[in-house]
Amino acid sequence: MQPALGVCYYPEHWDETIWADDAVRMAAAGLTYVRIGEFAWSRMEPKPGAYDWGWLDRAIAVLGAAGLKVVLGTPTATPPRWMLDIHPDMLAVDADGRVRKFGSRRHYCFAHQGYRAECAKIVELMAKRYGPNPIVAAWQTDNEYGCHDTTYSYGPTALNGFRDWLAQKYQSPDALNAAWGNVFWSMEYVDFNDIELPNQTVTEANPAHHLDFRRFASDQVVAFNAVQVAVIRKHSKAPILHNYMGRITEFDHWDVGADLDIATWDSYPLGFLEDRSDEGDAWKARFSQQGDPDFQAFHHDLYRAVGRGRMWIMEQQPGPVNWAPWNPAPLPGMVRLWSLEAIAHGAEVVSYFRWRQAPFAQEQMHAGLLRPDSADAPGLAEARQVADDIATLGDVEPVAAKVALVFDYESAWAWQIQPQGRDFDYFRLVFDMYRGLRRLGQSVDILPPNCADLSAYKLVLAPGLMRLRDELRGALEHHEGWAVCGPRTGAKTAVFAIPPMLPPDVPGVSQRVARVESLRPGAQRTLNTGAFLRWFEHLEGAGDVHLRTVDGQPALVGQGRMRYLAGWPDAAALAHILRGICADAGLDVVDLPEGVRIRDTVGHRFVFNYNAEPVEALGKTLPPAAAIWQAKPH
Amino acid sequence: MQPALGVCYYPEHWDETIWADDAVRMAAAGLTYVRIGEFAWSRMEPKPGAYDWGWLDRAIAVLGAAGLKVVLGTPTATPPRWMLDIHPDMLAVDADGRVRKFGSRRHYCFAHQGYRAECAKIVELMAKRYGPNPIVAAWQTDNEYGCHDTTYSYGPTALNGFRDWLAQKYQSPDALNAAWGNVFWSMEYVDFNDIELPNQTVTEANPAHHLDFRRFASDQVVAFNAVQVAVIRKHSKAPILHNYMGRITEFDHWDVGADLDIATWDSYPLGFLEDRSDEGDAWKARFSQQGDPDFQAFHHDLYRAVGRGRMWIMEQQPGPVNWAPWNPAPLPGMVRLWSLEAIAHGAEVVSYFRWRQAPFAQEQMHAGLLRPDSADAPGLAEARQVADDIATLGDVEPVAAKVALVFDYESAWAWQIQPQGRDFDYFRLVFDMYRGLRRLGQSVDILPPNCADLSAYKLVLAPGLMRLRDELRGALEHHEGWAVCGPRTGAKTAVFAIPPMLPPDVPGVSQRVARVESLRPGAQRTLNTGAFLRWFEHLEGAGDVHLRTVDGQPALVGQGRMRYLAGWPDAAALAHILRGICADAGLDVVDLPEGVRIRDTVGHRFVFNYNAEPVEALGKTLPPAAAIWQAKPH
Amino acid sequence: MQPALGVCYYPEHWDETIWADDAVRMAAAGLTYVRIGEFAWSRMEPKPGAYDWGWLDRAIAVLGAAGLKVVLGTPTATPPRWMLDIHPDMLAVDADGRVRKFGSRRHYCFAHQGYRAECAKIVELMAKRYGPNPIVAAWQTDNEYGCHDTTYSYGPTALNGFRDWLAQKYQSPDALNAAWGNVFWSMEYVDFNDIELPNQTVTEANPAHHLDFRRFASDQVVAFNAVQVAVIRKHSKAPILHNYMGRITEFDHWDVGADLDIATWDSYPLGFLEDRSDEGDAWKARFSQQGDPDFQAFHHDLYRAVGRGRMWIMEQQPGPVNWAPWNPAPLPGMVRLWSLEAIAHGAEVVSYFRWRQAPFAQEQMHAGLLRPDSADAPGLAEARQVADDIATLGDVEPVAAKVALVFDYESAWAWQIQPQGRDFDYFRLVFDMYRGLRRLGQSVDILPPNCADLSAYKLVLAPGLMRLRDELRGALEHHEGWAVCGPRTGAKTAVFAIPPMLPPDVPGVSQRVARVESLRPGAQRTLNTGAFLRWFEHLEGAGDVHLRTVDGQPALVGQGRMRYLAGWPDAAALAHILRGICADAGLDVVDLPEGVRIRDTVGHRFVFNYNAEPVEALGKTLPPAAAIWQAKPH
Repeated sequence: MQPALGVCYYPEHWDETIWADDAVRMAAAGLTYVRIGEFAWSRMEPKPGAYDWGWLDRAIAVLGAAGLKVVLGTPTATPPRWMLDIHPDMLAVDADGRVRKFGSRRHYCFAHQGYRAECAKIVELMAKRYGPNPIVAAWQTDNEYGCHDTTYSYGPTALNGFRDWLAQKYQSPDALNAAWGNVFWSMEYVDFNDIELPNQTVTEANPAHHLDFRRFASDQVVAFNAVQVAVIRKHSKAPILHNYMGRITEFDHWDVGADLDIATWDSYPLGFLEDRSDEGDAWKARFSQQGDPDFQAFHHDLYRAVGRGRMWIMEQQPGPVNWAPWNPAPLPGMVRLWSLEAIAHGAEVVSYFRWRQAPFAQEQMHAGLLRPDSADAPGLAEARQVADDIATLGDVEPVAAKVALVFDYESAWAWQIQPQGRDFDYFRLVFDMYRGLRRLGQSVDILPPNCADLSAYKLVLAPGLMRLRDELRGALEHHEGWAVCGPRTGAKTAVFAIPPMLPPDVPGVSQRVARVESLRPGAQRTLNTGAFLRWFEHLEGAGDVHLRTVDGQPALVGQGRMRYLAGWPDAAALAHILRGICADAGLDVVDLPEGVRIRDTVGHRFVFNYNAEPVEALGKTLPPAAAIWQAKPH
Repeated sequence: MQPALGVCYYPEHWDETIWADDAVRMAAAGLTYVRIGEFAWSRMEPKPGAYDWGWLDRAIAVLGAAGLKVVLGTPTATPPRWMLDIHPDMLAVDADGRVRKFGSRRHYCFAHQGYRAECAKIVELMAKRYGPNPIVAAWQTDNEYGCHDTTYSYGPTALNGFRDWLAQKYQSPDALNAAWGNVFWSMEYVDFNDIELPNQTVTEANPAHHLDFRRFASDQVVAFNAVQVAVIRKHSKAPILHNYMGRITEFDHWDVGADLDIATWDSYPLGFLEDRSDEGDAWKARFSQQGDPDFQAFHHDLYRAVGRGRMWIMEQQPGPVNWAPWNPAPLPGMVRLWSLEAIAHGAEVVSYFRWRQAPFAQEQMHAGLLRPDSADAPGLAEARQVADDIATLGDVEPVAAKVALVFDYESAWAWQIQPQGRDFDYFRLVFDMYRGLRRLGQSVDILPPNCADLSAYKLVLAPGLMRLRDELRGALEHHEGWAVCGPRTGAKTAVFAIPPMLPPDVPGVSQRVARVESLRPGAQRTLNTGAFLRWFEHLEGAGDVHLRTVDGQPALVGQGRMRYLAGWPDAAALAHILRGICADAGLDVVDLPEGVRIRDTVGHRFVFNYNAEPVEALGKTLPPAAAIWQAKPH
Repeated sequence: MQPALGVCYYPEHWDETIWADDAVRMAAAGLTYVRIGEFAWSRMEPKPGAYDWGWLDRAIAVLGAAGLKVVLGTPTATPPRWMLDIHPDMLAVDADGRVRKFGSRRHYCFAHQGYRAECAKIVELMAKRYGPNPIVAAWQTDNEYGCHDTTYSYGPTALNGFRDWLAQKYQSPDALNAAWGNVFWSMEYVDFNDIELPNQTVTEANPAHHLDFRRFASDQVVAFNAVQVAVIRKHSKAPILHNYMGRITEFDHWDVGADLDIATWDSYPLGFLEDRSDEGDAWKARFSQQGDPDFQAFHHDLYRAVGRGRMWIMEQQPGPVNWAPWNPAPLPGMVRLWSLEAIAHGAEVVSYFRWRQAPFAQEQMHAGLLRPDSADAPGLAEARQVADDIATLGDVEPVAAKVALVFDYESAWAWQIQPQGRDFDYFRLVFDMYRGLRRLGQSVDILPPNCADLSAYKLVLAPGLMRLRDELRGALEHHEGWAVCGPRTGAKTAVFAIPPMLPPDVPGVSQRVARVESLRPGAQRTLNTGAFLRWFEHLEGAGDVHLRTVDGQPALVGQGRMRYLAGWPDAAALAHILRGICADAGLDVVDLPEGVRIRDTVGHRFVFNYNAEPVEALGKTLPPAAAIWQAKPH
């Protein structure tokens, strides 16, 4: 399909007299989709039950008249102030017991039934009114679930919901006690109503207690979203999407995504580099005006899978933002590079945030495609260039990748609950593996933890999975390609216990983890090439050993084509190991210079140079901060 | 005028039998003023309505009998415990919602009307009783407003006050919504009583909301102080002063100062170096026993302006203190240096804190002029030497400086609310400019943001002013000298919005800020001499460009004698730029070695060597930790 | 006596069918003592008043049948959930006012009288039932008092208790006001019920207020423990012990220990290195798999004294733990080394924690002697080897040390309350001195602050004692050996005031501390050998000076054999000074390589090599991570 461009627009922020000119300029810039409405509840319903749809009717009409399509957002991330008069207990409570007050956004507890009903009401009115409108081409539910640490709440609403959830899951306190191991420290309960949320305990709460709370909280996000989806589907045939964020793992995106038609995400490469990267200062300095060379690609691949093949960028950074610790400007060319990279990874739409920079309120320092004085901002010219690129490219279809990587939200929760070493982070582990594959030129698919079919892949990686779901276990047992598990894969049962026969509880590995070590920064377990950092497992028992530490301990084991890694490899060790396995698996490997990445589609090979300088690679000189492509031979 | 010395004394801490001897020793040491009373409420009024003035009558008489003058402090920074029985809600509440309890000092919310009335009552009794007493030469209100983060309170008292304040300012919720831009994120209010304080929001509150809260809080300090001033003036003709602290920006000192006769401040050079300096460890290590070479001078100049020409040091550090992270001893000579520097900057009185070190309670590790065993502490000999210096110096009058620097509390609030880069701090920016001027040998005046007359100055600097007040705008438009604005000057309107035509909204600059960048530590935008750190603005549009980055972007622009700086210059860039402008402005420039500073008065040039080693400078060898002076040729 | 081994066991965690096999394996491994019961309240009393002793009867019988002895723990560290229905206010409250909830352990306020009564009730039932049982060889009260910051609570229970405690101590508010110096800042009270806990004050509370609160809190631990001891003694003749932790100073272990028969502690060398060491990264990296070479020895010597000669290791780390920031595995040999070192320092029993690693709940990643699948873990073989070593060693009796070091919990509180420099820590100061003595090959006794007899010692060190108790003052006055006090010894009176004649208030020192300096990292006061860091005191007055700074200030003073140190010596200065004094005192000094330590007993000299590499020392090659011994010539 041919990708398209879009933009986020807030007609309620501007005098109605300039809407038409804005719409014409959008279309002229090559934009197709315009997202509106997602923060405008106070203008849709200024007082309880008193609605004003006129301005929204006119805004949609004006955009449609310019040939634009509308993505209509439900405004449930910003309930108006009067909502608190009706539901004073709908506000979330933080882990320290403090109510999170009105005055910004996302001020609600996902578990609040009354607020869910209010959302259903406003969404139903919108869906009825705009569902038949052909200009409305898609729906967005809410905005950035989980942003600002809003997945978890620790107030009475969440507490009551959690108790109910536990009662339904376990049916009896004795069953819960047995599952959690509450005999430890006399934590046994005789009534579900005795159970508290796992915050503010004297020392750490039971990890099983934590894990069930996180499952409960994730389920609330799913249920909250599902209410809106059900209402919209009754009145509209347009696809429904949500805009996820980068590196948010508090709720299970696979579960939310199952109810939606398209997964979209908000891609802020420079903000995420400063705010959410594990890399050190040298890396951040090197890429401060470009973003991490793998962060965007990882999320494209992740959300393409969450969307079952359908993925958009709902908000693309077009210039400096306002919310990271430091907010430099993108190098010239980067907005185009980010856009093309998204397209190469399967984005159907790349939508910039936002049209015109707002001169007021919280995001006044966030660049748009226009400056606050309506002059073109630098991002606009790059967006126009992308529109030209799209015309040149023609259809772009995601390649059928030969390498896959499993990503599991529950495992992220498990290792946050029980890191065992301060710097053990599941996202980082998976992301390290992803980066390692990309440095070798691989195009990667990301798979859910309950994936039952691996037949498309020559190589599957599943590091750090706390447990193997039955579907994946079955698929691995019959997998004809190669697979790499570990470290920490299959380390726990579903109730957060060590498996009776010890980890790793994965097919094809006969050794057992006799003990684990977390390693302080600077400590390592040395290999001939590279080393294990942060984490090392002592594997004991019979079975093939393919690599050992210099001290002779098993480092890579496994029968047949199954491999299990005994630790967290550094970049050198990972490159060495993956290069060997890729060769064995018959995959083409390209050793790429740092900051250079490739991505294949069905018809093209894209090359991205994230460096600020030209780089010699792949037989040519890559210009700085630039994307190039070449058509593939058929 | 001839400067004088003083000391802070707590007769209530000592047996009455030693008062007379203390007084005689004070006079013999060359001291003139003795501040008393400011923490003694529980001795003045041991129980509600039960007063005991006898001890205070006698203490004043004993001091007067030795020829000393008294500065009498109102005791309102330390309400006794019984006050809480009358006004249990007078305690402040921190941003996390926790009541700040009794047990130390400054335990009150400035907005509490009941406590204000109690203060008026005790102050009126004091003013009536001691107003006619000729020994009482001055009054001090309260003590160190804002110290211990006490300007802001987040309890019901402050909330109610804030709602009233907003209602008076905006008259209607719609006006407030429009001013703040509350359409953003559906934050619109329909009633002033719906508005909360801007703490504990889910993500950041509206910057306009924050800014109005800070204005409200500052106004409460002004009103609290004004109540006492009004009461004292009814009964006393003696001047009224307050003792401000170093680097406290939470309330507007210009506004408080407008109601007072003299501005005084509490100068703790070593404590402030460890506790309030932005400089790194190397700097702090170099000056750990001397203090920052510009910090005291900056505050002398600032408070001389706040006092409209009248400035004292109310508390001068005489030895190690107790409250900084580390508390070394001053190098021999530094107490004298600090005292003479204050005098060179216009201090009418330098008063040491305190007479005798207390052996008990919170400040028992804070040195005095006497040890706890009443023996002379090292500071006493230096104070005596200063008394001799004063006799030698004769009259000292502040010079009419040719260079001025604008300092604005509201701008400090604005950039704390919206730093945009983690390390953007208004005080630091202004202080960097001040240091840059001093390194070039300039004597500097500090001006308020509403200054309407710049005619005395050949050069005026106004960095980082969030907005230009009408008076200053007018003065700049007609200024015949040179002026340097930026970075970030004129960046906002009064309601914290970006100006419609974009910043910088200042006369003489035709370019516009198209985008801004905040830069992580280590990143910079390079100039031929030096670089911009932390902050860089992309200036676009026609107009003169006087300096460019090595990449060719405008770095210094402006028509005629107006200059606008596009970023935060490092020391090398600042020295280069200021040296050129000073030359153009016809100012004499002296390049001083680090740690050496000069200050001109009408009759003298003082030279201060803050270094621990002798330094060759100005054609002579300056001894370490020493001040020298020479009479100016007439 | 002949030392013995033991293990901690949780029969309630395992199916009853495997108890007998476990017991047989324990005995076969050379273990004698088995601690059980201390977290099993919910199994002893599943519902209020409904007891189930059957399982415990059987567990004890099974262990006894295998020839093992039982240490029976009272389960009061883990009250069941139903206890909160009876005493909802028994939970502790943290310094921020947040209730510390159920869901882990140690969820009680020591001051709660109702909970104390509940503890007495369950302990009495246990003591009556098992006191006559010969298999029960000892009793443990509760578990790890103070762990997880549980000594202090800031709720109403503690507040009421504190007011009562103050009223009993001072009898009148005026007496309290005078003692605390409450005239300072008008903090005077007219009623004991006006006094609050010293948290959440606007700035720091009166140090005397803090100190009395800490004394009160420590007294609550003592009283809580004493209740249980009294009940057990009524029904059992077996010794009573408690298992203390490493580097917990919040309550006075001397006071708790006075009511017990044996002091035991829980020795986790690797966890403590990461979690509780002041040393830097290089040190931690060097010893990350061995532990600090002096930390264990210090606590052995401390608790041997707290137990008046009787000391056990109740929980010995046998492999990686779960609770430190990083949790590596011990080097092979270290479990044996730690065990033998404990024995060399007088441990009667070394008991490993725990028998079998639990696969569930909070400590599932804490190694045991068995793996969760019941296979031998590496620690078991080392424990067996220790059992063989014990057989070889025969009787081991602690040597009569010639060097002593005073350790005082109140001084730890004092300098936490008033560090004066951010990094002044009493434990660290004492530990530095201990390490300095050990590097010179000394075996050290630790003494309480009220020690009245120093006649056994050639050298006594008493650094940092806030005040000299009368007993120690008397002993020092008549001491015929050498003594080293300072820095900061005798700096305060019992009510946290500076002594009237100034510090140091110690015999044999005629100089007075005229001023003190705390020194930022990197700053120092230089000696010819080494330097003072962190702290330096200016000593004035007549008297012998034995060492001066290079600037000529007194560094080591004192008449006769009394020495007073004017600062905190670095390792070089300390070695220089101690070597000289040891020589003067007639002590044999051995300069040991880093990481090598010796410990003498009556019959043996033990040598421990904490290094990961072989070391040449004492005329031989010491293998890595190993303990060796040689019989002493008689």
